[in-house]
Amino acid sequence: MKAHEIQSSRSGIDAVTLVERPTPALGPGRVLVRMRALSLNYRDLPIVHGVYGVQPKVPISDGAGEIVAVGKGVTRWQVGDRVMGNFLPDFVAGPMTTAKARAALGGSAEGVAAELVAFGEEAVVAVPTHLSWEEASTLPIAAVTAWNALFVHGGLRPGETLLTLGTGGVSIFALQLAKRIGARVALTSHSDEKLARARALGADLGINYRETPDWDEAVRAHTQGEGADLVLDLGGARTLATSIRAARTGGRVAMVGVVTGPEATVSIPTIMGKGLRLHGISVGSRESFEAMNRAFEQLELRPVIDRVFAFDALREALAYLESGAHFGKVVVTV
Amino acid sequence: MKAHEIQSSRSGIDAVTLVERPTPALGPGRVLVRMRALSLNYRDLPIVHGVYGVQPKVPISDGAGEIVAVGKGVTRWQVGDRVMGNFLPDFVAGPMTTAKARAALGGSAEGVAAELVAFGEEAVVAVPTHLSWEEASTLPIAAVTAWNALFVHGGLRPGETLLTLGTGGVSIFALQLAKRIGARVALTSHSDEKLARARALGADLGINYRETPDWDEAVRAHTQGEGADLVLDLGGARTLATSIRAARTGGRVAMVGVVTGPEATVSIPTIMGKGLRLHGISVGSRESFEAMNRAFEQLELRPVIDRVFAFDALREALAYLESGAHFGKVVVTV
Amino acid sequence: MKAHEIQSSRSGIDAVTLVERPTPALGPGRVLVRMRALSLNYRDLPIVHGVYGVQPKVPISDGAGEIVAVGKGVTRWQVGDRVMGNFLPDFVAGPMTTAKARAALGGSAEGVAAELVAFGEEAVVAVPTHLSWEEASTLPIAAVTAWNALFVHGGLRPGETLLTLGTGGVSIFALQLAKRIGARVALTSHSDEKLARARALGADLGINYRETPDWDEAVRAHTQGEGADLVLDLGGARTLATSIRAARTGGRVAMVGVVTGPEATVSIPTIMGKGLRLHGISVGSRESFEAMNRAFEQLELRPVIDRVFAFDALREALAYLESGAHFGKVVVTV
Amino acid sequence: MKAHEIQSSRSGIDAVTLVERPTPALGPGRVLVRMRALSLNYRDLPIVHGVYGVQPKVPISDGAGEIVAVGKGVTRWQVGDRVMGNFLPDFVAGPMTTAKARAALGGSAEGVAAELVAFGEEAVVAVPTHLSWEEASTLPIAAVTAWNALFVHGGLRPGETLLTLGTGGVSIFALQLAKRIGARVALTSHSDEKLARARALGADLGINYRETPDWDEAVRAHTQGEGADLVLDLGGARTLATSIRAARTGGRVAMVGVVTGPEATVSIPTIMGKGLRLHGISVGSRESFEAMNRAFEQLELRPVIDRVFAFDALREALAYLESGAHFGKVVVTV
Repeated sequence: MKAHEIQSSRSGIDAVTLVERPTPALGPGRVLVRMRALSLNYRDLPIVHGVYGVQPKVPISDGAGEIVAVGKGVTRWQVGDRVMGNFLPDFVAGPMTTAKARAALGGSAEGVAAELVAFGEEAVVAVPTHLSWEEASTLPIAAVTAWNALFVHGGLRPGETLLTLGTGGVSIFALQLAKRIGARVALTSHSDEKLARARALGADLGINYRETPDWDEAVRAHTQGEGADLVLDLGGARTLATSIRAARTGGRVAMVGVVTGPEATVSIPTIMGKGLRLHGISVGSRESFEAMNRAFEQLELRPVIDRVFAFDALREALAYLESGAHFGKVVVTV
Repeated sequence: MKAHEIQSSRSGIDAVTLVERPTPALGPGRVLVRMRALSLNYRDLPIVHGVYGVQPKVPISDGAGEIVAVGKGVTRWQVGDRVMGNFLPDFVAGPMTTAKARAALGGSAEGVAAELVAFGEEAVVAVPTHLSWEEASTLPIAAVTAWNALFVHGGLRPGETLLTLGTGGVSIFALQLAKRIGARVALTSHSDEKLARARALGADLGINYRETPDWDEAVRAHTQGEGADLVLDLGGARTLATSIRAARTGGRVAMVGVVTGPEATVSIPTIMGKGLRLHGISVGSRESFEAMNRAFEQLELRPVIDRVFAFDALREALAYLESGAHFGKVVVTV
Repeated sequence: MKAHEIQSSRSGIDAVTLVERPTPALGPGRVLVRMRALSLNYRDLPIVHGVYGVQPKVPISDGAGEIVAVGKGVTRWQVGDRVMGNFLPDFVAGPMTTAKARAALGGSAEGVAAELVAFGEEAVVAVPTHLSWEEASTLPIAAVTAWNALFVHGGLRPGETLLTLGTGGVSIFALQLAKRIGARVALTSHSDEKLARARALGADLGINYRETPDWDEAVRAHTQGEGADLVLDLGGARTLATSIRAARTGGRVAMVGVVTGPEATVSIPTIMGKGLRLHGISVGSRESFEAMNRAFEQLELRPVIDRVFAFDALREALAYLESGAHFGKVVVTV
Repeated sequence: MKAHEIQSSRSGIDAVTLVERPTPALGPGRVLVRMRALSLNYRDLPIVHGVYGVQPKVPISDGAGEIVAVGKGVTRWQVGDRVMGNFLPDFVAGPMTTAKARAALGGSAEGVAAELVAFGEEAVVAVPTHLSWEEASTLPIAAVTAWNALFVHGGLRPGETLLTLGTGGVSIFALQLAKRIGARVALTSHSDEKLARARALGADLGINYRETPDWDEAVRAHTQGEGADLVLDLGGARTLATSIRAARTGGRVAMVGVVTGPEATVSIPTIMGKGLRLHGISVGSRESFEAMNRAFEQLELRPVIDRVFAFDALREALAYLESGAHFGKVVVTV
């Protein structure tokens, strides 16, 4: 079968190389999935660039496909079922623990950029019936992260105000979900054109952070001086301090990304004075994923896909993601 | 000013008598409200019937009006503000306590069926800007109860299934709120015509409980055998046991009414085996009310009003409520 | 190996018969445990009496023993490890679901009254190091139920008041745990001698419910008229209504037993008026069990064992439990 | 009456000047308290140093005293009652909001370093009966902060591990409370003598952070590599990053102090990877204070007082606090 490998002999995105690999073995309790679509996340970029040192051979964590064989003892699935991999294969339920977070697809464990991938039967979830392969491939990290940030840890309720940063996958899923439950949504971008698209998806306030570097003030002005009930900080280094200022007293800040760098300096008196709760979000459990799927089905929610690349154009897809030109998800068909 | 009084010389709804009363005194920290509309709740019926023994002179708990005078030291309001009374005037924030639950409008405290009513300034909340007087009058008990049952105690999330009983005020508010956040809703009624109206408001499953006395089975059949995530039991005596059977393992049951009687027999092994959580809902705090109002404004949600009566037709309005013919709220203009 | 079987040819406790059975097969992912001690729960009685119809061959859910063999692929255990079975073998983490609650040891699944028992490796937990076999055998249902009632669902805090009913295993564990965190504890019994023993374990208030049938009033009198913050109702039919009256406004009632019968009649206005939360407790997850074990180790808490019977005296042990004469747990050595 | 004032004509601690002031007026709904003891917090130092610019005339937030007069309409208190001021006088119940956090004693509102102080009747709480004036004076900030960090936001349970930094008031209260509920406690200090005293109070692990600058590793080594379940970070600038590394996956970090500075640089991937929850703690509501008092009474817990100064030696007391030589609380009698 064909698969992409990260080959250390080359550097950067060029390290990603299409190769022929043997069909994965199908042990007891495992299912073999014919991958049909992948989707990319920011996290895939440093991995491909070798930042974490020990790389998986096969990159990319998120994808959807069809079960073509089931191993001995498998009870949850049968051939023909449409499934997505769970980003942390051992994180089934309950709060996160060290053990549950150890394996991560396309990171500490092998990825899914291959024609055939074997998963443990507890590590895949059913695709919502209304979604295409391309749409389904976008859920495992981006949608589950948005879901956990909003509903599992953030407790977002109708009538509250969400601030989310940028127009990447997580941010657009958060915008869609928040609008569907009757929250107000403020969103930042450097591009007026992207802000216009966000408004078309329901955003109540679009802030161009280049024109308005003090975007926390814009959020407070939009909320009678109070600030946002929940902030999704996807920027990290250069945004977290402003995100904290943008939150209201008693508000919550979900830390879900490091697009502008991994280290941030924060004001502790601000966090204490507002009694803020900050939560590091690391995707979520399979039970969260399944609960989210029920919501997607009920809401008939469809992921926003920016562009679809062919399987042998994975490098181009990664370069496009790196350019930051996208709005929503970047997808690769298999 | 004109007001309704419960006069013990007569019995039943006829005890409600329109009289002339002195304008209420306006102490420090209090506001005087010119009532514009009232709405009725089941709870008003036993009070009018004298079931609780010591009655308030003035019945009815829910209403909306305009502030016409403010007492010394008042900082939260000014003349002209549109407000609703908070059902438990001393329940401002935090969990309910004995002290906070002591006073209840139109019960242990005087009611609002009068042209002018004085409230403590902490005991009224602002009317959502998009609502009429009639619409606003319906919120204090019915909408706040539904809000607390769904979001404060019930934790309802998109994709979950709500079962609610009947087509009274609380049930219809619950239906509207649940549909707006992407939950599935099952609803029971004895009337196919009311079920049709509920479906027009978005109900996914309408069950005629006369034709389908085992309505818990209908709910399970609708949910792949699992049962509802959250059940609003409004019936009490003759429905609670079935409501418990209709809930899924790990589900929640909100106890919000006693339309069919106050004492219910329940199966403890069922509650234990399913790990159910049952919650007695007694309206909620002023902070809950205010949070709900923000949701109503953001969702542009409008109460469903069945019928509007004139102030001097309060008896007829009560009799109409008692007949059970209504769908949504019964309102009285002042 | 020797094992006890429920043989339908006899009735009542006499149905329990000591027989010779083949050594259990050790499949992949499973461990073989040489049982060293069992403990009894009320739940074992109706099962032995055949109330649930389809019985397991081997009764009794709770026990502790030593791993003597590990199956293929087992990673969590090695030979010599001291373990206890988890009552619901498939309930590892997160909230309870239908699937997780399906199998129950000594009920819908085979029990542990045998010299050798095979468990899935995810279905056993390590014995706290300071506990003997007899002590460890008492934890799986009684201690985990008390832990979940107090800390997972009940949120008991220092300074609060717990009311618990009777002197069975769950109640005594609850008494011990609650006292160790600085809660006040009220406890009921029909026996002054048992009340004296409970007071020796720290109970602040002992109520003889035969002398004081309105024991809810005694609890309120002990708490400045407020009532208990948390009530553990173990009685069911004849106690639940009084337990509800004994809880304070905003309090919680854990439903953990049906010693006096399975159907109870409750006052819904009381539950609503107090805003009570009632929770059906069905033991708990393996993660709860493990968290509790850390607490037992840190607190150096030791179970209260009433009496220890020999393996071939299981019938006598069951009869003794049925007599209600015990204080704490009834244990059987293997 | 005598009172201390911050006089801007002098700088530093010398700005604190003992003066004669008029007896406070006693408006409706207010109580007049004859102060008997004050206690100092780190927060008092920057205020005395004028860091926040606009200062209160009278410094110091925490104290206890006796009610000597009650204003019109007061229902909660009578002359002779022993009370403590609530640090945020308007924060009675529920989650913190901007409005509730606006007034803070000895900061945005006048302080209590005076012989007589007038409080709103909702802004004082009863002294636990077993405590002296000096002991009671230590509760309002330090004990309530520890309580909220551990139980309201931190959810500390028996068997968990708490890490707390230093031997100031909050840290020692946290140590005492955590040990009483069966948690393990690790504590840092620069002084072996203070670590010995902490161990005498029950600390399981004392770390000299000068000898062991990587104290997060010491905590992980003490917890089978997992890290602490809850960390109280009191240091701020120079400790927060290490506190985050010391927390286990799924753990919590309470941000409760800025002893080493207000700005900290943190690693977002660490917070995300561990799914950490960070909570800014700003003391708490009056209901939290009252709940804590019930715990103090039940546990017969006594504050650790380092040293008691006379009223006219407030400057010396502040200088002593600033030196960092203390272990527990620094108190001033009135």
